[in-house]
Amino acid sequence: MEVKGIDGKLEKSDSTSADEISHLSIDIGGSLIKIVYFSTNSKCSTNDEAPTLSKERQEVPNGDLNHHILSGRLYFIKFETSKIEDCIKFLSSKKLQKCGAQCHHSHAVDKIKIKATGGGAFKFADLFKEKLGLTLDKVEEMESLVTGANFLLKAANHEVYTYIGGQKEYVQIDQNDLYPYLLVNIGSGVSMIKVDGDGKFQRVSGTSVGGGTFLGLGKLLTKCQSFDELLELSHLGNNRVIDMLVGDIYGGLDYSKIGLASTAIASSFGKAISENKELEDYKPEDIARSLLRMISNNIGQIAYLNALRFGLKRIFLGGFFIRDHAYTMDTISVAVDFWSKGEAKAMFLRHEGFLGALGAFMNYKDGSTDSMPPQLVEQQAAKRSSSCIVDRIHNSTHVQENENGATDCRLRVSSSFKIYDEVKRC
Amino acid sequence: MEVKGIDGKLEKSDSTSADEISHLSIDIGGSLIKIVYFSTNSKCSTNDEAPTLSKERQEVPNGDLNHHILSGRLYFIKFETSKIEDCIKFLSSKKLQKCGAQCHHSHAVDKIKIKATGGGAFKFADLFKEKLGLTLDKVEEMESLVTGANFLLKAANHEVYTYIGGQKEYVQIDQNDLYPYLLVNIGSGVSMIKVDGDGKFQRVSGTSVGGGTFLGLGKLLTKCQSFDELLELSHLGNNRVIDMLVGDIYGGLDYSKIGLASTAIASSFGKAISENKELEDYKPEDIARSLLRMISNNIGQIAYLNALRFGLKRIFLGGFFIRDHAYTMDTISVAVDFWSKGEAKAMFLRHEGFLGALGAFMNYKDGSTDSMPPQLVEQQAAKRSSSCIVDRIHNSTHVQENENGATDCRLRVSSSFKIYDEVKRC
Repeated sequence: MEVKGIDGKLEKSDSTSADEISHLSIDIGGSLIKIVYFSTNSKCSTNDEAPTLSKERQEVPNGDLNHHILSGRLYFIKFETSKIEDCIKFLSSKKLQKCGAQCHHSHAVDKIKIKATGGGAFKFADLFKEKLGLTLDKVEEMESLVTGANFLLKAANHEVYTYIGGQKEYVQIDQNDLYPYLLVNIGSGVSMIKVDGDGKFQRVSGTSVGGGTFLGLGKLLTKCQSFDELLELSHLGNNRVIDMLVGDIYGGLDYSKIGLASTAIASSFGKAISENKELEDYKPEDIARSLLRMISNNIGQIAYLNALRFGLKRIFLGGFFIRDHAYTMDTISVAVDFWSKGEAKAMFLRHEGFLGALGAFMNYKDGSTDSMPPQLVEQQAAKRSSSCIVDRIHNSTHVQENENGATDCRLRVSSSFKIYDEVKRC
Repeated sequence: MEVKGIDGKLEKSDSTSADEISHLSIDIGGSLIKIVYFSTNSKCSTNDEAPTLSKERQEVPNGDLNHHILSGRLYFIKFETSKIEDCIKFLSSKKLQKCGAQCHHSHAVDKIKIKATGGGAFKFADLFKEKLGLTLDKVEEMESLVTGANFLLKAANHEVYTYIGGQKEYVQIDQNDLYPYLLVNIGSGVSMIKVDGDGKFQRVSGTSVGGGTFLGLGKLLTKCQSFDELLELSHLGNNRVIDMLVGDIYGGLDYSKIGLASTAIASSFGKAISENKELEDYKPEDIARSLLRMISNNIGQIAYLNALRFGLKRIFLGGFFIRDHAYTMDTISVAVDFWSKGEAKAMFLRHEGFLGALGAFMNYKDGSTDSMPPQLVEQQAAKRSSSCIVDRIHNSTHVQENENGATDCRLRVSSSFKIYDEVKRC
């Protein structure tokens, strides 16, 4: 089976269609639909029996007989929002409605709910109902982002890294010194959220100059059709061809009195003012690079100003704009470093694009109206809490490297197939 | 005589070539050259006699016999930096070097200096020397901006206004409660300067997304050739055609929980992501409007964040990006209002584009090496200080309305044709 991933590329899907999808959440943004789902490898049953239990049950600290462990895989998939039909087809192929309804609660089809977040959870609610018989159970967008980020920051190893001088460096997060932090989610637009704890947050800022601007302007200026194509181009380009540098104004000199090197960008796209060139006279790769730098710089600057405003030491960046792209991360890092005079660092999240979908996933609550109840939590054997019975999201899987990349994972579910009220803290 | 003003338009010059230019300063930026000069209507003399004295001498409070008043006009002119030859021709036609040297100090031609600021004062120093025999006496760029702004804020009536709901409202500045303030100068790039007093300032921030970005990207996207043409276009456009609004993501709904109306821009240019349109399929006016809004919004936001950071109540905006353009001012005002939740207001300076040139003009100091020494100060009869002997820049003249617009003005010069060491405070 093939499904379309991001940007319309046809990709081989892991053959999960025969598997049982026990939990699925969806984050429908302005540009992208992000889906997280957990699939056991058990055959779908038609009664309320618990699915296959994991062999690892005995490994659970203070093993709780009221709970089962499901072994399976966690999948991360994305589609373009403009190609939502591909997403519908994909979900249809998974026969979620049958499985969800008949396996777990024998609900009528029209009562099946999946957790959904992002604006599209409102916009496309009718479409999902009509085409798939699914009700989108809405989870507030900022809440999802924060829940997803908190989960990853606390539960996932090697989740956070800095990118300085071309080097990734993983950061060990001290969970006792995590809050408050600034979460910068760069999707089509950018949200900046001050996070003070689980469920404690405030969207303090944002900017409309985000990933949608990069691709939107990029498509108009270069005729690139996809985000990744545009990123590839930018990698080959030279922004100095089109940006007006301090040295261009100062005759090659630094403006040292205010700390601006001759190579600093004085005006993004400023050289295009005076040159008798038309769009076609510029290389698309130079335009792409200038655009990426303008947007990355701007986000880094606004993020830093907001961190400063609230005295936040930590800035974590997520969202599908970053895509593990060296130049993007480098520019954001340099911007934060420049404006903070070295006092703040940009930190990136490996599961960057799936914060919202993961957060919605964590939102499954115990309750008869939820057809797919189990809760993803993470197991970290060395951790102190006996209630922490969650599988680690294995470090080897990075959603950026493979959009359909599956992560071996385990879920804890209650014996009665009801779930936790809340995410257990590890 | 015709000279080229901004954007290459040919404009009738006021026939000042026969007049005596007693003082001239120049601000050479990345995109524009701004010139401020004072011209008496007296014939150029060839000895050290003081020029024609003003009849208003007797009006000077506590009339100082050691000083003379020159009547004349203050001119504000701009050229594109890329067409610097036009500027050279213009200055050459004024025969500045002869007048300056022979009228005042009989300096050799190679000792004639004019006050110059902006990066071009470095970049084009040799060109001015070679073509005009003029030495550019450099005044630091931020210092010039601050000096010019302080002068205008203190001396000029009806200089400052807010722009809210399509209405200009002039603001009376309380000179005892002027400092500190944030000066936002929007040229090719943007500088943000915290001003604490005369000569007391710090460039605290800036952004490369400024006027150069608007025109640079605008030229590439619309084929407009001039800033004013692009502004005109934007006036006719509808940014909602190309910007992704909150309502586009949320199915027409507000995202009320975080205070975003359905009409708020979620992603600038974000609609271009998904539509199967090419650049040619969009109206240039819609693109121009989206671009203007993106940049104006962004500047308003970063300005506010910096004002907040330093606890600055007042944000004054200058630079040639604004151009008295309703939509630009409205967007910046709305951005500051939105992000500050109504606590801060953007205030605009009427002589917006000439802050640097005016500041350099004020920098003429007494000294034998200065060939054009007098100092522009302003007379405000009602003011308390007897040392304030400055002519008002008449309110009826607005540099935006007429690039070559001259302002009736008077200068105070010492009888020995030496000048004040510093700007006298009114």
